[in-house]
Amino acid sequence: MSQLNNNLINMEKHHSSFENFVRSLPVPILKEFVKGSSLQAVDFKKTNVILNTKDSDAITKAFPLSVEKSENRMLIAEGVLSVKGKRVAALFSGGPASGGHNVVVGIKKALGADNTLLATKVGPKGLLAGDFFEITDEMVNNICNTGGFDFMGSDRTKIKTEAQFSMVKDVVKKHNIDTIIIIGGDDSNTNAAILAEVLAPQGVSVIGVPKTIDGDLQLGDLLPISFGFDTATKIYSEMVGNILQDTASSLKYWHFVKIMGRAASHVALETCLQTRPAYTIISEEVLEKKMSLSQVINDIASVIKVRVEKGINHGLVLIPEGFIEFIPEMRTMLAEMDEIIGHSMEAFTAMDIVAKKEFIISKLEEKTVVLYNELPSSIQSMLLLDRDSHGNLPLSQIPTETLVIEMVAPRIKELQAAAPKDSSFAHYKFNALNHFFGYEGRCGAPTLFDAAYCINLGLVAGSLALGGHTGYMASITDLQTGGKAQAIPLTGLLNIERRHGHDEFVIEKALVKLNSPAFEFFVSRRKAWAEGDYFTSPGPRQLMGPVAKLVPITVALNRGYENLKFDLGNDTEIK
Amino acid sequence: MSQLNNNLINMEKHHSSFENFVRSLPVPILKEFVKGSSLQAVDFKKTNVILNTKDSDAITKAFPLSVEKSENRMLIAEGVLSVKGKRVAALFSGGPASGGHNVVVGIKKALGADNTLLATKVGPKGLLAGDFFEITDEMVNNICNTGGFDFMGSDRTKIKTEAQFSMVKDVVKKHNIDTIIIIGGDDSNTNAAILAEVLAPQGVSVIGVPKTIDGDLQLGDLLPISFGFDTATKIYSEMVGNILQDTASSLKYWHFVKIMGRAASHVALETCLQTRPAYTIISEEVLEKKMSLSQVINDIASVIKVRVEKGINHGLVLIPEGFIEFIPEMRTMLAEMDEIIGHSMEAFTAMDIVAKKEFIISKLEEKTVVLYNELPSSIQSMLLLDRDSHGNLPLSQIPTETLVIEMVAPRIKELQAAAPKDSSFAHYKFNALNHFFGYEGRCGAPTLFDAAYCINLGLVAGSLALGGHTGYMASITDLQTGGKAQAIPLTGLLNIERRHGHDEFVIEKALVKLNSPAFEFFVSRRKAWAEGDYFTSPGPRQLMGPVAKLVPITVALNRGYENLKFDLGNDTEIK
Repeated sequence: MSQLNNNLINMEKHHSSFENFVRSLPVPILKEFVKGSSLQAVDFKKTNVILNTKDSDAITKAFPLSVEKSENRMLIAEGVLSVKGKRVAALFSGGPASGGHNVVVGIKKALGADNTLLATKVGPKGLLAGDFFEITDEMVNNICNTGGFDFMGSDRTKIKTEAQFSMVKDVVKKHNIDTIIIIGGDDSNTNAAILAEVLAPQGVSVIGVPKTIDGDLQLGDLLPISFGFDTATKIYSEMVGNILQDTASSLKYWHFVKIMGRAASHVALETCLQTRPAYTIISEEVLEKKMSLSQVINDIASVIKVRVEKGINHGLVLIPEGFIEFIPEMRTMLAEMDEIIGHSMEAFTAMDIVAKKEFIISKLEEKTVVLYNELPSSIQSMLLLDRDSHGNLPLSQIPTETLVIEMVAPRIKELQAAAPKDSSFAHYKFNALNHFFGYEGRCGAPTLFDAAYCINLGLVAGSLALGGHTGYMASITDLQTGGKAQAIPLTGLLNIERRHGHDEFVIEKALVKLNSPAFEFFVSRRKAWAEGDYFTSPGPRQLMGPVAKLVPITVALNRGYENLKFDLGNDTEIK
Repeated sequence: MSQLNNNLINMEKHHSSFENFVRSLPVPILKEFVKGSSLQAVDFKKTNVILNTKDSDAITKAFPLSVEKSENRMLIAEGVLSVKGKRVAALFSGGPASGGHNVVVGIKKALGADNTLLATKVGPKGLLAGDFFEITDEMVNNICNTGGFDFMGSDRTKIKTEAQFSMVKDVVKKHNIDTIIIIGGDDSNTNAAILAEVLAPQGVSVIGVPKTIDGDLQLGDLLPISFGFDTATKIYSEMVGNILQDTASSLKYWHFVKIMGRAASHVALETCLQTRPAYTIISEEVLEKKMSLSQVINDIASVIKVRVEKGINHGLVLIPEGFIEFIPEMRTMLAEMDEIIGHSMEAFTAMDIVAKKEFIISKLEEKTVVLYNELPSSIQSMLLLDRDSHGNLPLSQIPTETLVIEMVAPRIKELQAAAPKDSSFAHYKFNALNHFFGYEGRCGAPTLFDAAYCINLGLVAGSLALGGHTGYMASITDLQTGGKAQAIPLTGLLNIERRHGHDEFVIEKALVKLNSPAFEFFVSRRKAWAEGDYFTSPGPRQLMGPVAKLVPITVALNRGYENLKFDLGNDTEIK
């Protein structure tokens, strides 16, 4: 066998040239965590900043032990910390996001040799089962700067019943665990707050780390962004930029790109600002301006017309995954349909597709029937899919990008019929292609921003664990001036929402604000981008050289930065 | 307006931080092209290597002027060349591929200040129309190392009729053009050979440059690969690697990824070797081993079963775009259907879908009906789509990845029914997602390999133009030892094929050979990769640092390299 064959076999299981390279890549670390050539934990002190929500009184009643201890005060790093003999369990919760491995690396480095770090296998499910393994230095060296959650796995189990709480109590007792660190999104951090309260009597603490590629867990100056957002959006932006470059090269296609990010449109907005396509839907705008589906379709068709008239027969439309749910009239229709089908579930399930259509049309409000009839027949059928166990339609199964294409095409034909017969637009042939970018962006190798952000978040979380703090979420702020390590009291973020007939605690999802600098910048440029080719190709993520240290554009705009560079301390080789 | 807003507006139209960075990135240049801090043209001399095909005699008769001049001899760079006053037109032909801009940069640098380089707008169509603009130094500085063909645009017009030849003759005369350089794939290079012969009496020369992301224009030691293949496969490999990392993180999905590359499976094989998924279809193997569709489906289902039994509920299947056309029985069925529908086109078009199905089933051979009935109903319907003007089904519209999923799912159910009731496999839930990666890979920022390869190919093409050579295709070989600049006589590559009832000249597409080292290495590992998680994530393309200079794995294996590094001379800033 040749030398190269052997080399290639040695690269199997996460040993590509690239993966071996990133493992030893120096990463910026906040100066308070650096001690000579190694890393150290720091102490956290209370500040005068107290967090409140509209439901603070009720939250204080529901979380008496946590609030009494934290007073809902922000914590800030101050001085070093030397603690021995603690046992900490880390777990991933929910969908993966790039940088998760580095959070584990940071926690391990904060704990050092004198404390024990356990990995929880396959997320909250593994916590309930007490399924742990001890994390060694060799393991963290191996996962450093790599993407994915595969080191421990993840799942979406919610720990919310008394029975589950009691299982967790038994598990932490049996395994002698002092702190659980939950690496997850808004729901998982809410869960961390609840578990912190539940485990407080046992003296066990719970810490959260803000993860989600959707970017809907962000808190202005307190938490500039969740980790994973930067990598995901830079991956999507490269792909969209590549396709834009293709549109201007092939000169004949319109690409309709649906992009992951269920509730908020942060991912779509960031990708839009990185690449500047002809049209981007921002769901929050559609909702706030009460736009109808046909209004959006008409807008897109009009942009296509204007471009054709300028000799540009190509373009790209960005569609956030959650778009459909943000159209007020679609919300109404879906709610009506769920209600109607819910009342006749068995009979409905037994009908064939034709009968289902007739049935639903006979029951819908008149206005809703008009909307339903406007939809392409394939989408009409999809809306009649069997409901899930909660009686809801599995909306992710609706190919929104195809829906938009199928509705734009006839609208263009209408506009063409009305155009002068000798115009270029009258003879234009609409060529549309569709894409969905999602899973590609959750587990890619982290950008240098996510790599650095996450190790530092891990160092914060590990330090909080050693300091015995509970009910806090780790944060790194001041991204352009060396970074500041902080901790956010989770009970200071909680609201109460009525869901499925009972009150639930929630951390409000951060949606795109129409008065934010990022959205306003988009609005100030979108006409130009619609009518001409202003796109830019942001290229693949670079881990070295002059373009390696960039923050997301939306974060820079919303935080009032003057440029896109970040500075999170000193480049440090992690070993 | 803030400073950042201004910065962002200045980044519009190809001025992202990344694009500005790559423009000044030093690129490896073969030493014979470097003269101090600038680049120079070289002279090309005939070698003793003469190329032949089975049809050489007929080709010699059809291309008397070209063959008389070239003797079908390879050329090799030797000595410098100083020529003034030549006018050269470059054009892109066919689908875009990364590195095309750098070919133009290389040509311009070879021509220097004493000759004129014209850009042909929108491909062969622009040549027929005489639509040119002069390329300045500023323009090439602007496109250097950027992806896409958008600098000049491209199209797929074939110049093959006497009327078109006469138009080209007029255009080159009117614009006083000495050489046309065609940057394109196998068809475009065939076209270059034909034009070289047609224009020879006028003293106008034609040079080809080997482009295609498909990798099916490669000639062993004479031409290791076409440009664009490396960038496209590294883009697809990153995406596939990211998804593989997601499968091992989410632990519940099977991803079915169709990957561009119509005829040959080079792209699928390269992506497979870069990432090592559980299953990869290689079309050439399906054809050569006369595999049936259900055999392939059964193989995939068996791999899924084996993995589930080992506790691995996830995986990824790579499917080359052309797969369907390579299944012998599908070829037969499609041919039968085209024939049947062709004979009753009008009546058939008028039928509704139910009538169409009945009609086709009544006419197909008995054996073919069995296959047709095995297909999912959505695919059955698609096969009844209206034929194009040549009477062919538009095969690219068939979502092969969905077809495979829809056939694998019931096969898994069958296998589950036969499995022990208490086995993990019996309770396994098959969760499949589908992707198509294609357009994302054609116009991305070139890898350092494509960037370097293309500038050097451009320097070869420009030098050949100045030297008055015609009917040659540029090549760079010896990728690990500094690079060797060569030229391949196109008439030495041509074969004659019967197409649509008449003889056509063709350069044979290079398919994946089952006895090639790359395919044999795949075969030696695929059982391990099927039964365990051996995947690797090759990450985003790096333009600096220790992993920037890598060749495709298939090229390294097939050329007998010991490692994946390339050496193409000295890193040179292009200015």
